[in-house]
Amino acid sequence: MTKQMHLTAFMRPVSLHTGAWRYPGAYADANFNFGHLKSFIRTLEAAKFDAFFMADHLAVLNMPVEALKRSHTVTSFEPFTLLSALAAVTERIGLAATASTTFEEPYHVARRFASLDHISNGRAAWNIVTTANPDAALNFGLDDHVEHGERYRRAREFVDVVTGLWDSFADDAFIRDQESGIFFDPARMHVLDHEGPSYKVRGPLNIARPVQGHPVIVQAGQSEPGRQLAAETAELVFCSPRDLESAKALYADIKTRMAAFGRARSALKILPAAFIVLGEMVEDAKRKRATLDSLVHYDSAIASLSIALGHDASTFDPDAPLPEIPDTNASKTGREQVLKLAQEEGLTVRQLAQRYGGYSGLAFVGTAESVADEMQLWLEQEASDGFTVVFPFLPQGLEDVTRDLVPELQRRGLFRRDYEGTTLRDHLGLARPANAFFSA
Amino acid sequence: MTKQMHLTAFMRPVSLHTGAWRYPGAYADANFNFGHLKSFIRTLEAAKFDAFFMADHLAVLNMPVEALKRSHTVTSFEPFTLLSALAAVTERIGLAATASTTFEEPYHVARRFASLDHISNGRAAWNIVTTANPDAALNFGLDDHVEHGERYRRAREFVDVVTGLWDSFADDAFIRDQESGIFFDPARMHVLDHEGPSYKVRGPLNIARPVQGHPVIVQAGQSEPGRQLAAETAELVFCSPRDLESAKALYADIKTRMAAFGRARSALKILPAAFIVLGEMVEDAKRKRATLDSLVHYDSAIASLSIALGHDASTFDPDAPLPEIPDTNASKTGREQVLKLAQEEGLTVRQLAQRYGGYSGLAFVGTAESVADEMQLWLEQEASDGFTVVFPFLPQGLEDVTRDLVPELQRRGLFRRDYEGTTLRDHLGLARPANAFFSA
Repeated sequence: MTKQMHLTAFMRPVSLHTGAWRYPGAYADANFNFGHLKSFIRTLEAAKFDAFFMADHLAVLNMPVEALKRSHTVTSFEPFTLLSALAAVTERIGLAATASTTFEEPYHVARRFASLDHISNGRAAWNIVTTANPDAALNFGLDDHVEHGERYRRAREFVDVVTGLWDSFADDAFIRDQESGIFFDPARMHVLDHEGPSYKVRGPLNIARPVQGHPVIVQAGQSEPGRQLAAETAELVFCSPRDLESAKALYADIKTRMAAFGRARSALKILPAAFIVLGEMVEDAKRKRATLDSLVHYDSAIASLSIALGHDASTFDPDAPLPEIPDTNASKTGREQVLKLAQEEGLTVRQLAQRYGGYSGLAFVGTAESVADEMQLWLEQEASDGFTVVFPFLPQGLEDVTRDLVPELQRRGLFRRDYEGTTLRDHLGLARPANAFFSA
Repeated sequence: MTKQMHLTAFMRPVSLHTGAWRYPGAYADANFNFGHLKSFIRTLEAAKFDAFFMADHLAVLNMPVEALKRSHTVTSFEPFTLLSALAAVTERIGLAATASTTFEEPYHVARRFASLDHISNGRAAWNIVTTANPDAALNFGLDDHVEHGERYRRAREFVDVVTGLWDSFADDAFIRDQESGIFFDPARMHVLDHEGPSYKVRGPLNIARPVQGHPVIVQAGQSEPGRQLAAETAELVFCSPRDLESAKALYADIKTRMAAFGRARSALKILPAAFIVLGEMVEDAKRKRATLDSLVHYDSAIASLSIALGHDASTFDPDAPLPEIPDTNASKTGREQVLKLAQEEGLTVRQLAQRYGGYSGLAFVGTAESVADEMQLWLEQEASDGFTVVFPFLPQGLEDVTRDLVPELQRRGLFRRDYEGTTLRDHLGLARPANAFFSA
């Protein structure tokens, strides 16, 4: 059988593009309207997506007020409340929530994911983040943010505590014998008694073992400690490689690191973020993207371009090509990427700025056939096991993907025509973990 | 118009009675089966209950293993995940979740309740607990539990932070003007910058102001600092008075304390917990209760009776009346209550033990008419503004109340025949709080 592609939908915010809410016909409140989100997830489920993925922030993001007031992400639902509500109106699609190891307690995190997994009948996934945003720290009484390496050391211990708590009860602990009055077998309950450098947690967790054994573990870090944490613990990796070559390198690196932990390469799926814009002709798709980019306000756009260039771009003529920029050591890679993009697509300073201020990551822009070609290439070249789809605007950009692209992938035998199992682990082809303290 | 009664359902655990899950015909997994809970809340909503109330524990409760293994509460859903899922399958009924001020962060709590309030379209309530259970502390890295007075001082500050964060945005802050590209008015956003003895939280909250302005504030403490916190901040009080006289005293005390904070008496509703068992005849109801009590295991029952008596009762003849007990200073009130109960109902040691091991709080046991009489008396005597109903077993005990008792209360004009508004504040007759930082 052809290698199968996995598709998750990046849904918090519903589009990462800053102009998404202004696109003609788009819902201005797509990110914060429960009715809309319910219809999105049902459409994704009908298209057999693996999962609905909620990134998260623990603060209003710190940005200049001119950009902030134009941001549709400033009001968002909290992941557990939203995903639990969506669990009640769906049957099969996976539900991936982000939870921070820096600003949460492992007992709470273990409990909420176990609860979501039970409510959804085995569809929960935990996206582990260590939260780099200093604004978040200020909302939790910390003036200084915890240092990067230390955050990852704590995250590693945090994962051990959470998975240990999930294993508090054997799968068969709950007898519920009304006749004898025995509700559960206390010999099938484990008290964790964890005492580590950062956490001291007794347990047991006050909820039965999750339906999936453990909810699926997701990791998004691309840094050195992030890759190591992923190779050791993650089952799904969300990443943002810029192009096929860097994706192949990242893919090979993480999969190779897994061997040191005795893990099979298939026990982890790597799903890069891909911004997908479809049209009947390639030119239609490009035009849609240009329209979308044009809705990014120039003031915030030019700031993003300046950052990418490592040079103040605000004095450039917006409607002329990018001028020569004196060579400095700062941000050489970023500058080369901007120059490459300017040449390839023949963009003016304004258009470049709006690209960087909108969405500048990996994008597949074209017809269902041409985009399917690209996705298939990535799969075959071992650059990915599928994609985390970022929609350009809602609802149309999402409906374009489910109506046109998914059937094309199905025709090629690259994507399921129906769910084969009931849990997210089933969809992803991941084994149900054994209980660390009890044999089955 | 007759004073209206408010009814909330105590649903975590679904019955406080330890024998509930063994009652003939009861769901053994009523407390941990999402399908059952969904049907319960829909039945309660059809009966126009004000709210579904989730108590909470942050640990497997510490009890002797003989009692623990018989407890149907050892596995429960986490409140936010359960209530959010139930919000998606209901329209009107309120959703009250417990969150601890000792083991949670105010930013998380403010955010989750705001999110639940938006998802449910204005039906969230926060039951503030300070968490006295030392077992919970051990799950959060604390060897010693925080002292009682200090817990309440922190709780008071915690409430200020949470309500301040809820007011981060004016109600009209979100413009979403697709034409101009302005998503919200930054002049209508408030940065809290709270710095107090226990909490330092910058804000703003990353979610729009709740539909209700603030979710309804619930408080359950009956201690001196608990009463004070309730009088100052609560809008709903859940309490457990033993009888009419003590309820009247508590009611008068809390309502009187409110004046010092400039609050009207009607701005807080007091809903004592009432265990309700119904039958076609009073004797039928009593028989049901006796059957239920008989399902409490004697080993755990006798331990509860010993605690109530302040005397080891395990040597008494289980099937004889309570013997004379030498007088000591320990637990005089408890002992007097046991003796009163033994005399009134003519119970043996076994039956007394099973009462204390089952549910020994306020109970209304009788026909729909006789129970409605008692409830009406409490309302008229200013002992309560309604009740937090504890069901003896599920689903029958719940269905008895909604099918027989609620219509009787409606016939008397004591309880609504339909919801008059859409939010929990509407149901309770509570005003929507003004924003502390913005005028409407």
